[in-house]
Amino acid sequence: MTVFDRLFADSTLSQLQEKDARDPLAHKRAEFKLPEDAVYLDGNSLGALPLSVPARLARVAEEEWGSQLIRSWTANDSASVGAAAAQDWMNLPDRVAAKIAPLIGAQAHEVAVGDSTSVNIFKLLSAALHMAPPQRRVILTEADNFPTDLYMAQGLNALLGGRYELRTVPGAELEANLTDDVALTLLTEVDYRTGRKLDLASLTAKAHERGILTIWDLAHSAGAFPVDLNGTGADFAVGCGYKFLNGGPGAPSFMFVAERHHGSAPAFLSGWMGHADPFEMAREFSPAPGARRYVVGTPMVLSLSALDAALDVFADVDMAQLRAKSLSLTDTFIELMEPLAAQYPLTLMTPRNHVQRGSQVSYQHPQARAVMRQLIMRGILGDFRTPDILRFGFTPLYHSHADVWRAVQGIRKVLEGGETA
Amino acid sequence: MTVFDRLFADSTLSQLQEKDARDPLAHKRAEFKLPEDAVYLDGNSLGALPLSVPARLARVAEEEWGSQLIRSWTANDSASVGAAAAQDWMNLPDRVAAKIAPLIGAQAHEVAVGDSTSVNIFKLLSAALHMAPPQRRVILTEADNFPTDLYMAQGLNALLGGRYELRTVPGAELEANLTDDVALTLLTEVDYRTGRKLDLASLTAKAHERGILTIWDLAHSAGAFPVDLNGTGADFAVGCGYKFLNGGPGAPSFMFVAERHHGSAPAFLSGWMGHADPFEMAREFSPAPGARRYVVGTPMVLSLSALDAALDVFADVDMAQLRAKSLSLTDTFIELMEPLAAQYPLTLMTPRNHVQRGSQVSYQHPQARAVMRQLIMRGILGDFRTPDILRFGFTPLYHSHADVWRAVQGIRKVLEGGETA
Repeated sequence: MTVFDRLFADSTLSQLQEKDARDPLAHKRAEFKLPEDAVYLDGNSLGALPLSVPARLARVAEEEWGSQLIRSWTANDSASVGAAAAQDWMNLPDRVAAKIAPLIGAQAHEVAVGDSTSVNIFKLLSAALHMAPPQRRVILTEADNFPTDLYMAQGLNALLGGRYELRTVPGAELEANLTDDVALTLLTEVDYRTGRKLDLASLTAKAHERGILTIWDLAHSAGAFPVDLNGTGADFAVGCGYKFLNGGPGAPSFMFVAERHHGSAPAFLSGWMGHADPFEMAREFSPAPGARRYVVGTPMVLSLSALDAALDVFADVDMAQLRAKSLSLTDTFIELMEPLAAQYPLTLMTPRNHVQRGSQVSYQHPQARAVMRQLIMRGILGDFRTPDILRFGFTPLYHSHADVWRAVQGIRKVLEGGETA
Repeated sequence: MTVFDRLFADSTLSQLQEKDARDPLAHKRAEFKLPEDAVYLDGNSLGALPLSVPARLARVAEEEWGSQLIRSWTANDSASVGAAAAQDWMNLPDRVAAKIAPLIGAQAHEVAVGDSTSVNIFKLLSAALHMAPPQRRVILTEADNFPTDLYMAQGLNALLGGRYELRTVPGAELEANLTDDVALTLLTEVDYRTGRKLDLASLTAKAHERGILTIWDLAHSAGAFPVDLNGTGADFAVGCGYKFLNGGPGAPSFMFVAERHHGSAPAFLSGWMGHADPFEMAREFSPAPGARRYVVGTPMVLSLSALDAALDVFADVDMAQLRAKSLSLTDTFIELMEPLAAQYPLTLMTPRNHVQRGSQVSYQHPQARAVMRQLIMRGILGDFRTPDILRFGFTPLYHSHADVWRAVQGIRKVLEGGETA
């Protein structure tokens, strides 16, 4: 019996199925639409569809928009006619914020929902640079941060006449670069390519010791494992609605501003929906209390409603259980992949150390693009990231250990088939 | 027979119904969901639901997202599995831009779709201020411009250290204020309160004579009547997806950058979806050609798909016919309202002159808030704008002259009932 045969022996699958039988989150899978003929390992790019979403979208379109029309912007308006209650779209961003807050260790009034992650990065960067002492001119980030984080900082700096320096260093050198000229850090907790998780608490504390503000991008964190922004003393954060929060393609993003900064963090993107009283139609912007001031224009109600419905999936989820399952899934994947990694040119990029791992596993492979194309044709839906990365995302809400087994079996067949040149 | 009796005589209604029978756009009404028991005169705040939208939303959610998942971002990917074609979400903003372009006299590559009107105002203001000669420090606007236009300019100016002056003048004094210190004008073509339409062509020409750039807010223009941006030499424009374009609550906004400025207008909100090659994952922002560079973050596909479907309503619409009908509807409304305006404290705010009128009619009334409350209870769905404005929007795609008659009859009953104190 070869190592591969042992790997895919019925006994191995049985052991994994036993784990699945004991999984306290196993029932959550039934709340998602998942392809029957495939293993979807790309929820870190686009989370799967929660089954409650289509009905919510239909209701918002046909009833709230189609029948109630403009009346849906307000709630309990005594002037409303018709049978259905008005839907209070004005406060929908706040209701969604209140659902995201517990997933990231925030208070509801510290969270604003709307716009894209990119635009929210701009809001936070501009606010934090304004708050930093003027002699601090460096934005410290990782060389391999997600490109839009870098681009938004480049654009803001150009707008401000180039007075700042975007200093990009390797992740391992971040701590040594927390110097007196740094205004703020702009870091993504989990690297989108490798799945490596930074120590948010430690880096935040060390930044604060040196008078540096922190902006954390939680794109691959929120909904993937517990995040405790207030417990770690974080200043600012931003995150994505369409990955582990399953809010749909391009779902609205969220941003966090710690309560202690509400008096000093300006909203430079000051739109009417962030005004203290939008329908006063005043000529001067007067910010709403708390993070609501960062809601800029009219919220995209259809996309926001999908995210609102999607977040209900988390209502009964113990985030510690979620994290434990995530680690068990990625541990299982790494373990099952080991014989393949020994035989084929696969290099594990994701840390084996749990505290440094997000909810994905990545390998380098010299023909990664072709390998992923073959995998997708076989129904193993991970993704390719330039230049040579095979990326597999694990979503503990809807993946089982048996899924992991199926995925590795598919990878083995592709690698053995050698159809990847 | 009193003037009111004549007004509401069967013969008057018959004449209006005859007009409706000759209306070349009458068939468009069947493409919308409209309340049967009400006259919806608030399409200038939220356009009615095009009947094609719910099915499109269901398809995007269940098929494109739910079944095709991440594969829907790309088109014709040979690696796709499953029966349905991939939906090419990456290029959806461009496809929507191509549908809006002919409605505003633009080329497709001059239009970007996404984000809110407020955020797009920020993009245009920051680009235009960068292009203006540095000694020009004034942003010229109307005192009664829509508040978010003012707020976004205030926020940007604060971010830039207050180096600009937001000069707010009455509409009648705009031309006299096109002075050598003005960098740009930020004007809304149709006033949201009064329905007064500025002379876009003349003001643009006079601004250019004096070296001033122009940003036009087309919130109450696009889809309401023909707009000819390139014919008038406009520099920049922004507009709203959820009013006369019927794209749904908070629908994505559009912005226009004239082709001649593509080499010099920077994109300071530079996100990965505006990059020339997003999946290259380069560390430096390199703008996509044309207006696509102004697409910042990941597009909100659900909201954008609704707008995309809604725009198909315009495919067979002659915009000159649309304008003619709009003026006929508002003329009819003003005429039918005349006896009421003579008897009750109603002051017409909207110009009688066609070239100065958008597609709405507004009256001042000292108890406007209470009057509108009563009207809404009777199914006449206009809206109240502070402090004393009754606002009635007319959408030539779905209103008939008989609707106008029903609306005025309802207004008469409310005013006669005197239940407005």
